[in-house]
Amino acid sequence: MSLIDQDNLQAILDANSKELSLNQIKNILKSMHSSEIAHALESSPPEQRKLIFSLLETSIEGDVLTELGEEIQQDLVSKISNEELSEAVKELELDEVVDILQNLPEERMKKILSKMSLRDRTRIEGGLIYPDDTAGGLLNTDVLSVRPNHTVEVVTRYLREQKDLPENTDKIFVVSKKDKYLGEVPISKIITSEISEKIDNLITPNIDPILVTENDKDVATNFERNNLISSAVINSNGELLGRITIDDVVDVILEDADQNFLGMAGVAEDTFAPPGRAAKSRVFWLSMNLFTAFIASLSINIFQETLDKIVYLAVLMPIVASMGGVAATQTLTIVLRGLTLGQINRSNIRWLFKRELAVSIVNGIVLSLLVGFITYFWFQNIMLSILISCALIINLISSVFAGVFVPLILRKLNQDPAISGSVVVTTVTDVVGFLSFLGLATLFLI
Amino acid sequence: MSLIDQDNLQAILDANSKELSLNQIKNILKSMHSSEIAHALESSPPEQRKLIFSLLETSIEGDVLTELGEEIQQDLVSKISNEELSEAVKELELDEVVDILQNLPEERMKKILSKMSLRDRTRIEGGLIYPDDTAGGLLNTDVLSVRPNHTVEVVTRYLREQKDLPENTDKIFVVSKKDKYLGEVPISKIITSEISEKIDNLITPNIDPILVTENDKDVATNFERNNLISSAVINSNGELLGRITIDDVVDVILEDADQNFLGMAGVAEDTFAPPGRAAKSRVFWLSMNLFTAFIASLSINIFQETLDKIVYLAVLMPIVASMGGVAATQTLTIVLRGLTLGQINRSNIRWLFKRELAVSIVNGIVLSLLVGFITYFWFQNIMLSILISCALIINLISSVFAGVFVPLILRKLNQDPAISGSVVVTTVTDVVGFLSFLGLATLFLI
Repeated sequence: MSLIDQDNLQAILDANSKELSLNQIKNILKSMHSSEIAHALESSPPEQRKLIFSLLETSIEGDVLTELGEEIQQDLVSKISNEELSEAVKELELDEVVDILQNLPEERMKKILSKMSLRDRTRIEGGLIYPDDTAGGLLNTDVLSVRPNHTVEVVTRYLREQKDLPENTDKIFVVSKKDKYLGEVPISKIITSEISEKIDNLITPNIDPILVTENDKDVATNFERNNLISSAVINSNGELLGRITIDDVVDVILEDADQNFLGMAGVAEDTFAPPGRAAKSRVFWLSMNLFTAFIASLSINIFQETLDKIVYLAVLMPIVASMGGVAATQTLTIVLRGLTLGQINRSNIRWLFKRELAVSIVNGIVLSLLVGFITYFWFQNIMLSILISCALIINLISSVFAGVFVPLILRKLNQDPAISGSVVVTTVTDVVGFLSFLGLATLFLI
Repeated sequence: MSLIDQDNLQAILDANSKELSLNQIKNILKSMHSSEIAHALESSPPEQRKLIFSLLETSIEGDVLTELGEEIQQDLVSKISNEELSEAVKELELDEVVDILQNLPEERMKKILSKMSLRDRTRIEGGLIYPDDTAGGLLNTDVLSVRPNHTVEVVTRYLREQKDLPENTDKIFVVSKKDKYLGEVPISKIITSEISEKIDNLITPNIDPILVTENDKDVATNFERNNLISSAVINSNGELLGRITIDDVVDVILEDADQNFLGMAGVAEDTFAPPGRAAKSRVFWLSMNLFTAFIASLSINIFQETLDKIVYLAVLMPIVASMGGVAATQTLTIVLRGLTLGQINRSNIRWLFKRELAVSIVNGIVLSLLVGFITYFWFQNIMLSILISCALIINLISSVFAGVFVPLILRKLNQDPAISGSVVVTTVTDVVGFLSFLGLATLFLI
């Protein structure tokens, strides 16, 4: 439970090059915390990763697996035997076991479950019914629950009887005889209250438990806005199913941020994914771009005659297209962020559009003066300067329409605008950029 | 403390259009949680934001301010009187007050501090000495500390004497008479231990407290890896200064993710920033791109004669450049993510480079066949097809060098590669794309 020890990490990562013996590596691994080992695995190319994992003791394998990203976790799990896996996950929390098992082939999952005790199996099968990206996927059943008519004295005795409270227990839940969720009482309240006080009177008012079907990103927003450590999870009948704790929510937040960051470039893979998988994850995006690049070419093709007469138009035309692409990506980024954070809705989208338009016009004027000046300095042609400036302003204005409406339309069509948005908006600005510049040139220079 | 009530939010956001009376808006605001109000403010254009904030009661203003992003917080703070501000922040936690005050002009900060009690002033001045982006900036002084020779009985009595435990108190800290940090004991341990047990024997082993000068992102990594709720913060003498809690760490994580997402597009502003500020935040990036676009134009300019003879080269050349740009951005994104997560170091960068090269060659072959085929279909010129295919492969290979080495070099030069990286790499691929395609055409088609 210490900060990552950079020396250990480096030693493990250098293991191959320094030719440490397997025993030496094992010893270093023994001194490392499971989160350090997970970080080392995530920082290792596939071959080395396999080697390091094979040197771990089974007792720590489960903890390490839960700290890994999904892709690497699945890779490593596919390489160990059913016996070893069912042994490794035995001590994990419910949501952690479920995370590991739910990605296995049906056949294998059944085999592993059959190796477990009836109690474990029932518990895990209960967790497996909830989709990964819902509150149910984050559910733990290690809750402490009490009845409303219990006194603080009874509850204190009950808590004392537990050898260890479950991790991150900041509150206990109050339930009816039929397991209906009635409310929650912070542990701190129990400590500071009179021992004769009834639990019923200590319940924190105005707390809404989380519904098991709720989206995991909404759960994260809820935790963040209300500074929660843990929250009760109920089913649609209001029965307490378990709880969600902040550590799992932090993982949701980090994973989501990672996906958003990678998604804009059409990438979705772990940093040290093998070349085949990485190539596959990226080729779709590149092919999409190839398709749209040909569309842009078609718009240039219209003006072959013009280009034939004035060849330096070909020199300048990528400038107009590229500036529009950058401006559109900026607008798109702001709109995507607003959509992700739930900040954009029908009452403010109009203001946002007008603001973006104002930004583009202001920046368009500044930049078109700059472009016009440089162009004049280069080609000594005042008409050309005016044309490229006008084309730039037209394209920056088109970038606002693309940047604001493309993500909104994609969302209406149930496409993830963070993934396909940037290819679409740059296609728009490429096409408008070439059309406006070469079109104006055809009208006024020939 | 409930989930965001969408009806409330919509009602507030629609306030202007529906022409609610100020009293009606006030009443809706009264029924909302401070985090809901903060979300509504962040989702409002500046004018409406000012109006909503002016309708809040002073008692909730402080809580709302702490939930806001820095930019909006500063905006609103600049609009209220010193008296109101010092009243509003009175009840906040130390790190929250410090966050608000440290961005004020020196003069104003002094005036507000002078309106506070000596005790508050001393406490806040103590917090103001730490930079915003360090552990010190997240520091709260609301710690419970005990001596090692106390018994559980004494500590339980001490806890019971507190009317309310500080929020997120999952552990108490053990200190010497001279305030040296000695360790920590989870509250759950105190509840479940014999009352005669000495605190000394309950200290969790192997816990490292956080040094007050530590970077806030490292603090976040530490919390995430070790699933912490709170952690002690010490100075270089080992004295306990206070603690950091998970809710503030979650804010660091979210802010960091937001900056990473926006940074790639050269944007850094809140979603509803006024047009002037938004234009200013983006114009630097656009100007940089203008500069690099002219560099790309210069590389086309070399081949004016070639373009003059074969005009359709101008039609096809943006394809090669644009494909290289997308591939380079993909590689850059993976490298940036690896650098941010601390996964990349001298022992694995070579593997990563080779992997990227393999990916580009594989995808290069696939895509160049596709490009060659489409080009042949369009222009019926086999030589042209071969040339564009070769140019594409060359550019995809150059994209690997750019995508891997540009961020590493920028980091060596102490530049943030997430911010300037993408402009630099696309310049490389634009230039290489135009040079290779037009160069090959000059050699083989003329």
